Amino acid sequence: MEEKETEISRLGEFGLIDRLTRDIVLKNESTRTGVGDDAAIMYYGDNEVLVTTDLLLEGIHFDLRYVPLKHLGYKAAVVNFSDIYAMMGTPRQITVSLGISSRFTTEHIEALYSGIRLACEKYGVDLVGGDTSASVTGLVISITCLGDAKPGDAVKRSGANPTDIICVSGDLGAAYMGLQLLERENNVAAHSKDKNFQPDFSGREYILERQLKPEARRDIVAILREKGVAPTSMMDVSDGLSSELLHICRDSNVGCRVYEEKIPIDYQTAITAEEMHISPLTAALNGGEDYELLFTVPLTDHRKVEFINGVREIGYITKPELGCALVTHDGSEIRIHSRGWNAFEHEDGNATPATEK
Amino acid sequence: MEEKETEISRLGEFGLIDRLTRDIVLKNESTRTGVGDDAAIMYYGDNEVLVTTDLLLEGIHFDLRYVPLKHLGYKAAVVNFSDIYAMMGTPRQITVSLGISSRFTTEHIEALYSGIRLACEKYGVDLVGGDTSASVTGLVISITCLGDAKPGDAVKRSGANPTDIICVSGDLGAAYMGLQLLERENNVAAHSKDKNFQPDFSGREYILERQLKPEARRDIVAILREKGVAPTSMMDVSDGLSSELLHICRDSNVGCRVYEEKIPIDYQTAITAEEMHISPLTAALNGGEDYELLFTVPLTDHRKVEFINGVREIGYITKPELGCALVTHDGSEIRIHSRGWNAFEHEDGNATPATEK
Repeated sequence: MEEKETEISRLGEFGLIDRLTRDIVLKNESTRTGVGDDAAIMYYGDNEVLVTTDLLLEGIHFDLRYVPLKHLGYKAAVVNFSDIYAMMGTPRQITVSLGISSRFTTEHIEALYSGIRLACEKYGVDLVGGDTSASVTGLVISITCLGDAKPGDAVKRSGANPTDIICVSGDLGAAYMGLQLLERENNVAAHSKDKNFQPDFSGREYILERQLKPEARRDIVAILREKGVAPTSMMDVSDGLSSELLHICRDSNVGCRVYEEKIPIDYQTAITAEEMHISPLTAALNGGEDYELLFTVPLTDHRKVEFINGVREIGYITKPELGCALVTHDGSEIRIHSRGWNAFEHEDGNATPATEK
Repeated sequence: MEEKETEISRLGEFGLIDRLTRDIVLKNESTRTGVGDDAAIMYYGDNEVLVTTDLLLEGIHFDLRYVPLKHLGYKAAVVNFSDIYAMMGTPRQITVSLGISSRFTTEHIEALYSGIRLACEKYGVDLVGGDTSASVTGLVISITCLGDAKPGDAVKRSGANPTDIICVSGDLGAAYMGLQLLERENNVAAHSKDKNFQPDFSGREYILERQLKPEARRDIVAILREKGVAPTSMMDVSDGLSSELLHICRDSNVGCRVYEEKIPIDYQTAITAEEMHISPLTAALNGGEDYELLFTVPLTDHRKVEFINGVREIGYITKPELGCALVTHDGSEIRIHSRGWNAFEHEDGNATPATEK
């Protein structure tokens, strides 16, 4: 191979994808939209068919020292379902490809699969195919999910308009703090002289579950449908709120204002963050893996969303020239930068704040 | 992790898949068939929608010492298209997930992508999405392809009937011999004292191209459609003719007889095999990666297929109790065993013969 020229970490994941896909011209009638949303939209018969895919690599996306294989399987499936729900679609089928190194036995893979199948059962999704191979290194999990939506129902990232209300479901930062806690206890265990050392997670069950066994917000999608709310844009929070807000604003060509005091943070998230000298706000903005839904609705839908259990209005969409900013408790504005999770960045300890004066 | 119990190599890829998926119950109306064919069949609107996926791992499926990245990208896409054609479908969309280790630059990934996009262009397929991530080890490529067919047109592996004619397109064993040649020359280069050593591939271009830049048999599918031939079963030859024949016979609950003298082997394949002390028949039966189409047609379609350029009738389907056998030049029968490529088997040099007295 030739001399190295452009390090991928300089572009980051999204920069690289942009560079590789920016001039793609779609040719098939059945293709509606391509690269650049939670899922691509196709049109087969009278249905919008959605497709999304996720690649999980050992050592990058998971660490088997503290993630049980069954949980890993469950999560690998659910994060794909989440991408389909984030289009207001319904997940229907998945394919599962596995690369398996020689240290895994059939029983290990059965445990992984049992988690995948449990998720499929819970969300009513069929496992229809896949590919299984040896791997010379770690475990590789590649899942692709198909879903559908009624014509015109799929919600993209690109439809937000000035004055729209920005909403988010659930709470943010918990999965990130769960991961920090797991990593800390794992380090303590590794350095402990007590061979029977057992980490004490009591009172932190919620943040652990958010990390190890996340759920997709099918319930929120169902309520929005039931109430006749048609979000103008939607995506799931997988890389952190900052990163997702910037995606919606860029794709919709708008700006936004989000209020610090309205960002939903759970109590366990807050106390664990403080204990570990991490700002809870940083965990919420940059943590990622929340799999909550971030969406915008017209101002006229305020009445419909304000009393939905588990949905919080956190700000509003502006004209693009106003940029994206966080409004702090004291009313000052901080520009939002993306410091969402970037697998290409070199590890340098804790996440850095996503905001900058 | 607990003690290891069942080594995966004991079950092999297909045994493992059977074990993981045997009791799956399909729940969605849109799911027609699941695991166990070249592609799964779904039903969206009035279309049969097909989905297939392939996972390619560095060190298992490809070796970057002699595979250019652009070729690798092309092949990774084409092998998926081949699975869709092997259902008599038309490939429409792909998603591409990449795991990229730090030794790759943006330019490397652009080269890989240029091959994928060239294949998409040639076959009229849209690249609609994917996932890109760092990898701590080698390159990981996971491609999923969607395609469609008119209702009832998709051809499965399970429809072959006794007296059906067995047909194969093109010739077999060339890709395997191309790989042997590349590996040999690479070894020679590695041990050569001459720093300017250049392998001489003249006269072997065909088998190299079959290995490095295979094509999917869209042309054969088009001719079969044009002539009104409706194959009773079909699959592509990716793991070797023996393995694929056994798949069709098992899934259709039939046996087969295949004539040694009718198995199509190219001249370059034959001379390279003999030079390397490999039986050309072994290369054809077990080599794999041919991406030719293996299919069965009713006896009454003999007239329609016998003059199709590039299609060869190689045998016929029998009742299941007769088993699967190769009829040699002298008229004796050799039982066909699967010695197709198994990524879970430990390397032990050359392929072993797929037949046994």
